[in-house]
Amino acid sequence: MKLFPKEVYQERRKRLKQLMGKGVLVFMGNEESSINYKDNWYPFRQDSSFLYFFGLDLPGLVAIIDVDQNLEVIFGDDVSTEDTVWFGSVPALSTLAESVGVSSVRPAAAMDTFSKTVSLERVHLLPPYRPENLLKIAEWFRVPVPQVPRLVSESFIRSIVSLRSIKSEAELVELNHAVSLSVELHKTVMRGAREGMYEYELLGKVMGGAAAAGGSLSFPPIITTQGQILHNHVYSRKLAEGGMLLGDFGAEAPSHYAGDITRTIPVDPTFSSQQREVYQLVLDAYQLAVGALKPGMFFKEVHLMACARLTEGLKSMGLMKGDTHEAVAQGAHALFFQCGLGHMMGLDVHDMEDLGEQYVGYTDTLKKSTQFGLKSLRLGRQLEAGFVVTVEPGLYFIPQLMDQWQAAGLHTDFINYGELKHFRDFGGIRVEDAYLITPKGSEVLGPPLEIEIEEVEALRAL
Amino acid sequence: MKLFPKEVYQERRKRLKQLMGKGVLVFMGNEESSINYKDNWYPFRQDSSFLYFFGLDLPGLVAIIDVDQNLEVIFGDDVSTEDTVWFGSVPALSTLAESVGVSSVRPAAAMDTFSKTVSLERVHLLPPYRPENLLKIAEWFRVPVPQVPRLVSESFIRSIVSLRSIKSEAELVELNHAVSLSVELHKTVMRGAREGMYEYELLGKVMGGAAAAGGSLSFPPIITTQGQILHNHVYSRKLAEGGMLLGDFGAEAPSHYAGDITRTIPVDPTFSSQQREVYQLVLDAYQLAVGALKPGMFFKEVHLMACARLTEGLKSMGLMKGDTHEAVAQGAHALFFQCGLGHMMGLDVHDMEDLGEQYVGYTDTLKKSTQFGLKSLRLGRQLEAGFVVTVEPGLYFIPQLMDQWQAAGLHTDFINYGELKHFRDFGGIRVEDAYLITPKGSEVLGPPLEIEIEEVEALRAL
Repeated sequence: MKLFPKEVYQERRKRLKQLMGKGVLVFMGNEESSINYKDNWYPFRQDSSFLYFFGLDLPGLVAIIDVDQNLEVIFGDDVSTEDTVWFGSVPALSTLAESVGVSSVRPAAAMDTFSKTVSLERVHLLPPYRPENLLKIAEWFRVPVPQVPRLVSESFIRSIVSLRSIKSEAELVELNHAVSLSVELHKTVMRGAREGMYEYELLGKVMGGAAAAGGSLSFPPIITTQGQILHNHVYSRKLAEGGMLLGDFGAEAPSHYAGDITRTIPVDPTFSSQQREVYQLVLDAYQLAVGALKPGMFFKEVHLMACARLTEGLKSMGLMKGDTHEAVAQGAHALFFQCGLGHMMGLDVHDMEDLGEQYVGYTDTLKKSTQFGLKSLRLGRQLEAGFVVTVEPGLYFIPQLMDQWQAAGLHTDFINYGELKHFRDFGGIRVEDAYLITPKGSEVLGPPLEIEIEEVEALRAL
Repeated sequence: MKLFPKEVYQERRKRLKQLMGKGVLVFMGNEESSINYKDNWYPFRQDSSFLYFFGLDLPGLVAIIDVDQNLEVIFGDDVSTEDTVWFGSVPALSTLAESVGVSSVRPAAAMDTFSKTVSLERVHLLPPYRPENLLKIAEWFRVPVPQVPRLVSESFIRSIVSLRSIKSEAELVELNHAVSLSVELHKTVMRGAREGMYEYELLGKVMGGAAAAGGSLSFPPIITTQGQILHNHVYSRKLAEGGMLLGDFGAEAPSHYAGDITRTIPVDPTFSSQQREVYQLVLDAYQLAVGALKPGMFFKEVHLMACARLTEGLKSMGLMKGDTHEAVAQGAHALFFQCGLGHMMGLDVHDMEDLGEQYVGYTDTLKKSTQFGLKSLRLGRQLEAGFVVTVEPGLYFIPQLMDQWQAAGLHTDFINYGELKHFRDFGGIRVEDAYLITPKGSEVLGPPLEIEIEEVEALRAL
């Protein structure tokens, strides 16, 4: 458990109370998650908002803030004397609570009683994403499970999003640490990948490297020869001559802050000319997007700028045609770039995704588009200094999607379907780094990682 | 996904139907488990009974066998055309179902309708260990969540236990593979552990090694300098001169069969004389126990034989005294050996633990003891040819427990409390391997792994 000084948590809770003004705020800590029987557990992961406001990285806790009474309580049980035989001794929960500035601790079972003393109108809950917490909420507040979503508090979500979106100096230290670990893992793969290896051998290096540094991974890694499959969590393929390897993974620091980086490398020592052309185009879009990051800029605009740059390049390559602005407006480029340019990053790799994209990435006046491509953009709103965002353009050649679009006669004004045959087996390329929005622009998190074609090839040659 | 030929699954289901005779058997497949937001997932793990009878290693499936109508159905949804963009193309569920000999496939949502056509008396359910399955069962069968346990079918559990307890040749191939991988991981740690390293560095080797072989780990690894903490999942300590390292971990093969091995090594090139004495005693108990394994033998007896051997040795060392048989009968040895000698192993490392220890490890006539020590013995019943069990004696010097027992005046006839002071900082030693019960005795699973003192020291010297 990596903790900030208790004043950090006190200050965060104080600001939250000011934003909320009133009510009883409930923070559901996480439980252990069972794998194949109750006591065989996945690695414990505390809820990120619980970590942000209460810091304690242990299962079975619930915390409340009664704003009206200025009361903060952590509900949970000490390890029993008998359990110390099995698990070793652990500081008393009251001692741990003190370390985050909370003086009131009650047994876990007392939450049931407490919940029934509070009128439902005063209760503020976050959307539960784990079924055991859904069940607990239903029981405590005596609502049927399907009606629990009605208890979710928009003002509570908005207040938390406003605080967690702006990263403090101390958080940036942790984010930089997570990104530094991520850079090391990527270097291992970028150097070590060789023709004839299996993807899972590289997965082993990544998982082992993260654990060996005392951390873990912030999301299921993508380490694939089939970069066009965007959420590919299969690792059974062999690295083949002439192919590429796309690695999209990041470390989670012991403090649970996330890193997230993508690189695409050739299996051969150098890129082929076709790979080089596509890679350079993706990199151009990346650099254009990075250059546009600054407070006040809509991230949706940055996304569209990258889309336009990709479209220009695809036109030069003969795959697209027509007016670039019009093509992007109609979403024709999404045949090759189906997803969004990036997302917030913090204690979650998609920061605060559990709280709802409509609050984290959009606003009352900027709603998410329903257009294919744009509907996968997690972040659209204006950037502010202190945001941490990823920039991750890519080009993905998905035969099923090409065939689907062509059969449906989609965007024939902008797509040269006849030319696509040269790219059916190309795969996909993405590059990604995380950036802090500064008062004047942005700066990359962590140490620099090879990204230019020459740099990547030089690293591969080592 | 590693599958057996479809006839294997058909035969297993046929035997299950014969054992059950009637009713509707429900197999709850597992879902993805969320880490810190809904779509960030732990590695998917299918339910083991689902794997045993239906083989399919995908989330979101439910299977039923209507014994009376000789009907087998898998409920689940195909990947949508849009999802193939994100996840790649996957064979149709009907094709997958064919590969395990099931011809009837229905959409996931149809389970809700189906469940309401079946009278509750005909329904057989296994105990749910994941909350989302608990919720589904409650909804489908219209019972309140707290009453779901009433739907659990003892006859269903007993039938499955009787089948899964006896491992087939094909299963033994997989178990041997899991153990072979586990042996390799242990060799890496036994060779690589050095003074000054942190436990998490070795954790990294283990996690990385398992993944690099295309597998995973069958349970959260114990890799600790504090071997006396029996369920220690903290990896933050440094390996210190004069100390020991206890590694208890095993690989899960791609087929999901488990391995489970423990070794304890000195951080120095050789054991100290005190470590050597305790290690040899644990090894003697291990060898005595292994020699006693055979069909018809109660595993509880084997456990008690090991306890007696440990007690004899502790008497020689001056830590215990009095009549060995009496000391073991009263549980005095449990100050040093607080847990059980072993457990069943198969698709789960504690095989079928979700179904209930009272059915897997005990019988109607042999109930689990409530005595400290014996109450942690997961397996007591008579061994049968085809069982796979672990043998894992140990000696654990737990200062809190010593103080507790001494303060309570427990077993003063058998414990020389005055002598314990020489062992307060000793730690703990355990050795463990898995054995197949054969018609005449037993044989170890996997290739041999260094276990004798000289062998371990020789490996450390490499």
